[in-house]
Amino acid sequence: MGTIVVGYVPKPEGRAALRRAAEEARLRGMRLVVVNSHRGGREFDRDDAIESEAQLDEVRSTLQEAGVEHEVRQLVRGLDPADDLVNVANEVGADIIVIGLRRRSPVGKLILGSNAQRVLLDAPCPVLAVKAGEDEPVE
Amino acid sequence: MGTIVVGYVPKPEGRAALRRAAEEARLRGMRLVVVNSHRGGREFDRDDAIESEAQLDEVRSTLQEAGVEHEVRQLVRGLDPADDLVNVANEVGADIIVIGLRRRSPVGKLILGSNAQRVLLDAPCPVLAVKAGEDEPVE
Repeated sequence: MGTIVVGYVPKPEGRAALRRAAEEARLRGMRLVVVNSHRGGREFDRDDAIESEAQLDEVRSTLQEAGVEHEVRQLVRGLDPADDLVNVANEVGADIIVIGLRRRSPVGKLILGSNAQRVLLDAPCPVLAVKAGEDEPVE
Repeated sequence: MGTIVVGYVPKPEGRAALRRAAEEARLRGMRLVVVNSHRGGREFDRDDAIESEAQLDEVRSTLQEAGVEHEVRQLVRGLDPADDLVNVANEVGADIIVIGLRRRSPVGKLILGSNAQRVLLDAPCPVLAVKAGEDEPVE
């Protein structure tokens, strides 16, 4: 059974990526591995962990209802999200990685974030990049 | 019927994108619009046009054999490939854009080309990015 790996953050672009990844999993008959990555350290405290866990429960419910075979991995290993995502993709032999893109405009023009760039370049498989708002919700 | 738009250049990353786009078209029951973009100008002469046409004939044969409904558009409008691709995607109401990524290393580190970045940011739909060598050929 093939595997789709998706990077999830509880933001519009993360939810868009998750919905799209669930659709792709159903279309292709693949399972889904959801990667929620935190660098950890001081700024990630007990409250953050509890909130994060609640958000991931919501993810699990959504995927359960959508009938998608899935696994949720919360990683707090001091790594950048790009490294966590690419490592998991390598480990599970991912067929596709799905990421959400956030538009940024630090000097007045749009650029891709460094995490997105690194996933695109380092991924061992094709990467599907979605932006918030361009996906259809899972029924 | 849905539409997949793919950027094609006669290079390994362009062929990888084309093969992958054909697979996606079959999987989703969509048609394929192949965009081959040249800026034109002095450096694009008659010989280039003939060579380019021969390459596109090969593309048409491949897609014909793969049983994918398709259309090939060769654009020589003085635009960057990213603009041509995004314009066509908007025009046809693309569901997905497929692009091939080339690794570049001008200052010793990997970066994404500006065309790829602009397609990712400006695309009206999700973008599937593939690198040469990671796709399976169409049977």
